[in-house]
Amino acid sequence: MNRDFIFGTLHTEAQRLAFERDAREGIHHDPYLSPPDPRPHQEVTLTVTLGPQVPADRVTVYYTTEDMVPRGHRGRPQVGEAVPLTRVSVEWDTLLWGYRTVWQGRLPGQPEGTVVRYTVEAWHSATRFSRFLQDGDRLRVFGYGVDEEPVAEWLRAAVIYQIMPDRFAPDPGTDFDRSADPQHDIMGGTLRGITSRLDYLARLGITALWLTPIFPSPTYHRYDATDYGAVDPRLGTLEDMDALVAEAHRRGIRVILDFVANHCSDRHPAFVAAQQDPHAATAKWFTFEEWPHRYRTFFGVRSMPQFNVDDPGARAYLIDHAVFWLKRGVDGFRLDYANGPSHLFWSEFRRATRSARQDSALFGEVVHTPALMRSYVGRMDGVLDFVLLQHLRAFLAYHTLPPSAFDVFLRRHVAYFPPDLVLPAFFDNHDMNRFLWIVGNDTRRLRLAALFLFTMPGPPILYYGTEVGLSQDADVVQPNGWHHHGHARLPMPWGEDQDRDLYAFFQRIIRVRRAGGAVWWTTPITPRVVDDARGVYAYARGPYVVVLNTRDHGVDIPLDVGSLLLTTDDRADVRRGHIHLPPYGGIIAVE
Amino acid sequence: MNRDFIFGTLHTEAQRLAFERDAREGIHHDPYLSPPDPRPHQEVTLTVTLGPQVPADRVTVYYTTEDMVPRGHRGRPQVGEAVPLTRVSVEWDTLLWGYRTVWQGRLPGQPEGTVVRYTVEAWHSATRFSRFLQDGDRLRVFGYGVDEEPVAEWLRAAVIYQIMPDRFAPDPGTDFDRSADPQHDIMGGTLRGITSRLDYLARLGITALWLTPIFPSPTYHRYDATDYGAVDPRLGTLEDMDALVAEAHRRGIRVILDFVANHCSDRHPAFVAAQQDPHAATAKWFTFEEWPHRYRTFFGVRSMPQFNVDDPGARAYLIDHAVFWLKRGVDGFRLDYANGPSHLFWSEFRRATRSARQDSALFGEVVHTPALMRSYVGRMDGVLDFVLLQHLRAFLAYHTLPPSAFDVFLRRHVAYFPPDLVLPAFFDNHDMNRFLWIVGNDTRRLRLAALFLFTMPGPPILYYGTEVGLSQDADVVQPNGWHHHGHARLPMPWGEDQDRDLYAFFQRIIRVRRAGGAVWWTTPITPRVVDDARGVYAYARGPYVVVLNTRDHGVDIPLDVGSLLLTTDDRADVRRGHIHLPPYGGIIAVE
Repeated sequence: MNRDFIFGTLHTEAQRLAFERDAREGIHHDPYLSPPDPRPHQEVTLTVTLGPQVPADRVTVYYTTEDMVPRGHRGRPQVGEAVPLTRVSVEWDTLLWGYRTVWQGRLPGQPEGTVVRYTVEAWHSATRFSRFLQDGDRLRVFGYGVDEEPVAEWLRAAVIYQIMPDRFAPDPGTDFDRSADPQHDIMGGTLRGITSRLDYLARLGITALWLTPIFPSPTYHRYDATDYGAVDPRLGTLEDMDALVAEAHRRGIRVILDFVANHCSDRHPAFVAAQQDPHAATAKWFTFEEWPHRYRTFFGVRSMPQFNVDDPGARAYLIDHAVFWLKRGVDGFRLDYANGPSHLFWSEFRRATRSARQDSALFGEVVHTPALMRSYVGRMDGVLDFVLLQHLRAFLAYHTLPPSAFDVFLRRHVAYFPPDLVLPAFFDNHDMNRFLWIVGNDTRRLRLAALFLFTMPGPPILYYGTEVGLSQDADVVQPNGWHHHGHARLPMPWGEDQDRDLYAFFQRIIRVRRAGGAVWWTTPITPRVVDDARGVYAYARGPYVVVLNTRDHGVDIPLDVGSLLLTTDDRADVRRGHIHLPPYGGIIAVE
Repeated sequence: MNRDFIFGTLHTEAQRLAFERDAREGIHHDPYLSPPDPRPHQEVTLTVTLGPQVPADRVTVYYTTEDMVPRGHRGRPQVGEAVPLTRVSVEWDTLLWGYRTVWQGRLPGQPEGTVVRYTVEAWHSATRFSRFLQDGDRLRVFGYGVDEEPVAEWLRAAVIYQIMPDRFAPDPGTDFDRSADPQHDIMGGTLRGITSRLDYLARLGITALWLTPIFPSPTYHRYDATDYGAVDPRLGTLEDMDALVAEAHRRGIRVILDFVANHCSDRHPAFVAAQQDPHAATAKWFTFEEWPHRYRTFFGVRSMPQFNVDDPGARAYLIDHAVFWLKRGVDGFRLDYANGPSHLFWSEFRRATRSARQDSALFGEVVHTPALMRSYVGRMDGVLDFVLLQHLRAFLAYHTLPPSAFDVFLRRHVAYFPPDLVLPAFFDNHDMNRFLWIVGNDTRRLRLAALFLFTMPGPPILYYGTEVGLSQDADVVQPNGWHHHGHARLPMPWGEDQDRDLYAFFQRIIRVRRAGGAVWWTTPITPRVVDDARGVYAYARGPYVVVLNTRDHGVDIPLDVGSLLLTTDDRADVRRGHIHLPPYGGIIAVE
């Protein structure tokens, strides 16, 4: 399960144990509400737990419904209102060797459009003990929005295509800089290049483009912006972007930008000013532990200072620019490292972006536990499904999960999430080895994985080039442990370099996906064959049945299905009451 | 918290982590029912969890209401009835990095006197997978009794005195063998010796005697019996025992025997026969992993073979002998290593012992988590409170828990347990250093600990000699890690060797305890002063207030109390609105 390095902060047993202990110690609040996504005038139940070492016998939540930080002390409100929580149970915790207590309370319903802010105090009625839930030495302020906003239906139905703009297509009539190093250098992709390939993408059948960052940045990947309101001149102009959006929309393709609210470049003018003057207007946009050289960053990368997104100035800067792009026609955002910024920030972000564009969509990158993923319901339309990614690679690439274990995982995974959280599904992205590479460039296995991916509830994402056999020349993780993401970000092949058979297969599977519509996100996954000995997994989705042969041998499967919709391989065959699949072959049929 | 070696199987972090993982992996059932102690015709809800690696999508419970092992396969009953469980939730488990599922189902209500047996199968509807909950390679059969039996009220109200018969009192007119080694040798205490000291005990005020084992055994401690129906001849005769019981009862003192159902001596005739002949009638009373030399034991001690208590022969042998003692007048049993035998066994044991003596009481030694302790409700009247023991020693002896942390622990601890499980409370016993020894033989601190112990909800237990200052000459745990329990089992001092002031103090505190009656086990513990800086802890219990100064300095405490009932020290003083306590001093007052 750990073959890939995906869950960076939860990769090892020791990290997971430390995380578990941390969640059980101290004052803990998992911002998963009940109901998870409050509607107008619905009461909201909050749960807080106290670890064995917290000498408190009272818990109070303070809340405000205006843009003010709630305050109070020992149960008495100073700004906003106070809600005393009730102890609902005492739990024994063997790991901590002590008792935890579980507290609940209800915040009253609020009108449409309210953002509720709240803080949590634990205190002791017979001592002076009082402590607020904090993040380091900063008060943690939680929040949620109250609205009737539904999930963006176009996102549920989407087939998404992920592009790294520097690597997809250069200006028409030009080529990539073939002498550039993919690990560090600009290779020359542009927005005009993308626009010139929209017909290619429309023929493929995708319905949404996700562009990784396009804002000005010192790096080729641009996950460290210096300006949130412009296009990197090496990619083109704002007008080029407007044209890309207009041309995409003309073809029925939505455009999703990558938005990094967590951090920016250390060359961003706001940070440069903050480092020059501790009283600069933007100094509070960041968290200086010791001005000017010690500050919070993205995982210790000093060139990526972290925004203090709950500072009103930083918040306004980020939200105003998100709105700017929506007003220019962009359809939504993929939110980079979405578990960095606070839940309160995302509730504000959601309210503002929906006000700007009613049908805009947000999905977050939350490379963390399903419990945390789930907590963003109501704040985003969805979160990227890294947990499915990890398990499907174990099942189909590494063969470390047999069909029966994968089946059990898959159905529990789907059951765990509320229906109004969309989980975009993928088998690779720009941060890891491509799927084709880890299966030894065997396109049979890539097709099989696609058959699985395109029959899941979440909208599938294709990483650029997958459809024409783009692979790698070396592993992302080097023998010395360093990551060379450049290997998974090679330039898009065009013309003769494309595998046209594979492209045709992806055209067909996208057609099947789009024809199925809501079947994929409304019907259960019902196992039909779970055969560990032969590596076969078959499941029904509404009227369809999907059969996967995960092994390098042909199999005959006694299963009665109707007409074939799609095969990975011409040698796949259906006879009465019987399916023949070649090695790594699969089918979608009508049941 | 780990200063003492108490929780042998859960002493280290690694042990606790392994235990936690084990409880989350595989098929798991915690035999804590809902309701915890089923009454006639009440439905019983059972909960089963499946770990991430269990490839099952169905759970079935098979049950019988006669003395038969329930059987079934893939949901179909073969012996007894089947109840399909329903999946009630999916939980993410970060430690195991996978999903667990929680299943519940209801067994129908049964008439008074029924013992319900049940087994648990997890299976998969689309594969051949089927597995039962097992203990090693043996089917686990659970069980519970259905009855209206209340807790024995005399146990709730008891002040218990624990005697090791070899070490308490020799025959009148004789002395202990002073040349004997307390670690290994018989020192000469007898039942007639105990009977001759009943007036001493009655004057002290205790209401129940707990005798550690008296059955024939090769050892002085007798936790490895060779015959469950006789008195060790070195202690006396059956008639001596009858006389002890009669004389105790005449003084209003109950008699509790120590009963070891988990294991016997390897010289027990049943085991000798089983080792000689694998087809012997008693061969199935034990679990031979490889006959005749590899068999289950008490923690690897080869001289203590473990009974297979669910074998009908072994079960009958143990239960018949328990009934034998009750019919001779004994009032109940302290059940040694009670978490060794199955819950089903204890339900049977309970039914039989209550049938024999309606007012008999059982309390178990469960040196384990509160979660496991709690699971014996309905099967026993109580369990010994090793968790309180550990924390009170940390609070009062080692000062590793400040008053605020102890207060939080204590009130969570009391809230965790159902009211119909009695938790006998103690600050030492025969398996660890005496309390007086760990506080440097400072009787002020012993009195303070007694003040606490005698104002807790559970009936207090005094280990013989505590009341007259019996201490040790060396630690139980030797520098080399070996345990020399003999140091905590020195012979009882009599005559001039007794601390008579201390004895008078214990007389007084027992009188306060008995006068308070149900106040102790029905009213909450309400903190009045929790002062970490000065080490003061005060709490109310109904009309009483208890004030403890845990430190080696005098304190003045602003607290208004009424008349003094008891002080640990003459220098303790109450003035209007103000209490003065000398170092390690404490009081009980009327509020």
